[in-house]
Amino acid sequence: MWDRLLTDCHVATMVPRPGDPLGLIMNAAVAIADGKIVRIGKRTELAGYRSAEVVPLGGAWVTPGLIDCHTHLVFGGTRAEEHALRRAGASYEEIAAAGGGIASTVAMTQAASAGELLESGRRRLRALMAGGCTTVEIKSGYGYDAASEIRLLNTVRALGRDEPVRLMPTLLALHALPQGADRDAFVDTMIDETLPAVARLGLATAVDGFCESIGFSLAEIERLFEAAENNSLRVKLHAEQLSNRGGARLAARFGALSADHLEHLDSEGADAMARADTVAVLLPGAFYCLQETVRPPVQLLRDHGVTMAVATDCNPGTSPLLNPQLAMNMACTLFGLTPEEALAGTTVNAARALGIDGEVGTLAPGKQADLCVWRIESLAELAYWIGLPGPERRIFGGQDC
Amino acid sequence: MWDRLLTDCHVATMVPRPGDPLGLIMNAAVAIADGKIVRIGKRTELAGYRSAEVVPLGGAWVTPGLIDCHTHLVFGGTRAEEHALRRAGASYEEIAAAGGGIASTVAMTQAASAGELLESGRRRLRALMAGGCTTVEIKSGYGYDAASEIRLLNTVRALGRDEPVRLMPTLLALHALPQGADRDAFVDTMIDETLPAVARLGLATAVDGFCESIGFSLAEIERLFEAAENNSLRVKLHAEQLSNRGGARLAARFGALSADHLEHLDSEGADAMARADTVAVLLPGAFYCLQETVRPPVQLLRDHGVTMAVATDCNPGTSPLLNPQLAMNMACTLFGLTPEEALAGTTVNAARALGIDGEVGTLAPGKQADLCVWRIESLAELAYWIGLPGPERRIFGGQDC
Ligand SMILES: [Zn+2]
Ligand SMILES: [Zn+2]
Repeated sequence: MWDRLLTDCHVATMVPRPGDPLGLIMNAAVAIADGKIVRIGKRTELAGYRSAEVVPLGGAWVTPGLIDCHTHLVFGGTRAEEHALRRAGASYEEIAAAGGGIASTVAMTQAASAGELLESGRRRLRALMAGGCTTVEIKSGYGYDAASEIRLLNTVRALGRDEPVRLMPTLLALHALPQGADRDAFVDTMIDETLPAVARLGLATAVDGFCESIGFSLAEIERLFEAAENNSLRVKLHAEQLSNRGGARLAARFGALSADHLEHLDSEGADAMARADTVAVLLPGAFYCLQETVRPPVQLLRDHGVTMAVATDCNPGTSPLLNPQLAMNMACTLFGLTPEEALAGTTVNAARALGIDGEVGTLAPGKQADLCVWRIESLAELAYWIGLPGPERRIFGGQDC
Repeated sequence: MWDRLLTDCHVATMVPRPGDPLGLIMNAAVAIADGKIVRIGKRTELAGYRSAEVVPLGGAWVTPGLIDCHTHLVFGGTRAEEHALRRAGASYEEIAAAGGGIASTVAMTQAASAGELLESGRRRLRALMAGGCTTVEIKSGYGYDAASEIRLLNTVRALGRDEPVRLMPTLLALHALPQGADRDAFVDTMIDETLPAVARLGLATAVDGFCESIGFSLAEIERLFEAAENNSLRVKLHAEQLSNRGGARLAARFGALSADHLEHLDSEGADAMARADTVAVLLPGAFYCLQETVRPPVQLLRDHGVTMAVATDCNPGTSPLLNPQLAMNMACTLFGLTPEEALAGTTVNAARALGIDGEVGTLAPGKQADLCVWRIESLAELAYWIGLPGPERRIFGGQDC
């Protein structure tokens, strides 16, 4: 006896078959029990079984629930005024002088009460959920010490308890150097104190860093990754966004789940990522917001067989993007992904970028019953509309919510 | 005795005062009776009156309901497959050969049943409403004869009857020449038969055309505008989008409500528009979707004192944009508008572009009680977020809906 049987729908299982990268099933049915998918196939194949509830979907398309595998969702304040200054032509220095930049988010995060931090994060999380997300990765990184980072990760934990969504917390340990801080002392503290403390508390499933001239060096990231390994945490990296520093190769060497941004990735980096099965997470919202001109080398990634994911990068400074479907559209419009690549990038490949493709990201027996029901004629519409409000139904663990 | 009193809010009335382009009122209250605003001011100024209902808004920001003054919302099918081909590098000729382009929308519109046309239009309209729109302009233009155009405009009328929103129907008479049609015969029919028939039926408030090498000539548009004048209809024009053909000057000569797109507008055109009080409607969704590189000359428009509006241009071919807030963000990100200009562009100036600024677009006594309640800290956030799901409350004619 099943709990629910979804019928009268077409399904993109995202389990590829030869000549069918999306694993399509037309005139399908999906059987759900105990929050998981127990059977999925042609409607006719699932006839004759019993289900407590039958849910006809009127010919809609069903996909896995969307997975946003790269966000910085929990922070204090916004940077709306800074963005207005930037549009008006203010230079980086003028913005910094006016109190802008990442330091302002750190200060506003510090100043925010626990309730403010939780509720503003909740509003953004609910926007992503309304857009179809059933899994969202959230990075810390706006605290400059163990206590502040733990406070952010505790906020993520609280949101995950409250809201019908799966949250994947990441310790973004080396994000930006505090103004006036001693570089080595800061790096030491984050690696030797913050990371082990977070690991002990079980507050993060992965560790991340920002490898860039304005961020941290290869050597610093390498030390961070060694500490992550010692604490049994997987790693990911903001790499090659503004310049090529070899971050992707380093990440691959540590078996990173993903390397993210990658506008300046070279062939060696792509090759290393393919061999290590490190997912390339593309973030078109930041490219759009910063009005960048160098696109990530999508054809290079394809040529090397690197798995590509797509995420919002939702953050206050460079990508205040609140709609996962818009990230799909931007990946196609700005980066030239195909609609199929964009859909894989926010489902199965995003799950791989989080190391949870055994549970979510595809629709198959044994997987979580996280699904989106879209009132569209063809799946290509998911890449086509600019700012689709969201799916008609979002089903998390088998329940509409 | 008022019907409703909105309190505990800050208001952007959009009635400018010296040094205060948005007409801000902090700690405000808005009194509503019979669907209209009867008083608006500081909370303290509105004390002592009686209201059937008092609605505290918890410190939210209130703006006029958003006005999308340029859409092609009612059409059959989508062009999602065509967009996928285009992203994959297909040429214009290849897309046309694959059955794409505007002709495909005309054919799919023709093939759609009345119910399909209505319900697909309704889904898109509801997306714009969820995004904060209380007024939406909708153009015809996907029919190539009087009967087909009237069918589209009747669909708009039906949507306006069903949904809590104000729809402004425009006859887009000269949109594209049907393949294989005799040019002069087609233009004659649209001007001499379709336009008067639509005017007789009262199905449109304005007449529009597409003045472009791939559209219609200045001389043809001039004949269209003369016919509109003879039928007491206002005019607007798709002008200078892909090249400068003098469409803006022509539009100004006829006292057009607006000239739209304007990427290739020159100084003479801007000057003529300013003198004629013709609004410049900027459409960043099409610029984004087509990945254009020539931006509309915003500084030139400012220098000449041309009023600027911002719209989605929601259409299946070049701007399948479903979120008015995203149009505001794109106008700032892509065209360099200020947040204040973007907000004026989707409220008071959009109302001017439709000739209804006496009724909507500002919050003042006597105006329609069409408002949006936004859960934001500062108004600049309306330009900052990329794909905000919409206002917390949308109030149309005084009612939440
Ligand atoms: Zn990031
Ligand atoms: Zn248009």
